[in-house]
Amino acid sequence: MTSFRFVVSVMPKEAILDPQGRAVEQSLPHLGVTTASGVRVGRRVELTLEAAGETEARETVERLAHELFSNPLIETASVELVDATSSIATDGRP
Amino acid sequence: MTSFRFVVSVMPKEAILDPQGRAVEQSLPHLGVTTASGVRVGRRVELTLEAAGETEARETVERLAHELFSNPLIETASVELVDATSSIATDGRP
Repeated sequence: MTSFRFVVSVMPKEAILDPQGRAVEQSLPHLGVTTASGVRVGRRVELTLEAAGETEARETVERLAHELFSNPLIETASVELVDATSSIATDGRP
Repeated sequence: MTSFRFVVSVMPKEAILDPQGRAVEQSLPHLGVTTASGVRVGRRVELTLEAAGETEARETVERLAHELFSNPLIETASVELVDATSSIATDGRP
């Protein structure tokens, strides 16, 4: 078995109003930042999955990304593999 | 001037309990996923900054990441440049 570490990025869709992003954008001038635009606030979920292979692990994470981590009506979710660690040592040591 | 698009990732520190991550982890078996672990839920902020150069833009975003987007006591923030677009056409066309 291998441990796969994934990052799921969930962002509001382009056409969707992002109240959090707007609130941030409006507060920026008070911090002296007047050249910022297009602020969008979303979620970042990290998780580890044990699986026999990457395809199997990715399928599970893709399903979770769209069923649990995001609302497909108003958000987009993308999945990225960031680490894979085999639980059996490959150098012959136990 | 150049437009720099940044992604700021804000995650709860390792040592900090992450109630949202725990709630997700506990709901996974109900979705048939029993091999997940280490679920952490954080934020992803995207924004564009107009600046003369990348160093200047990055300095501003780093400051915002630590002053506005995250609470340094309990969260870590990392900044990534994902796109840079010059507002002056380089092919000679206006």
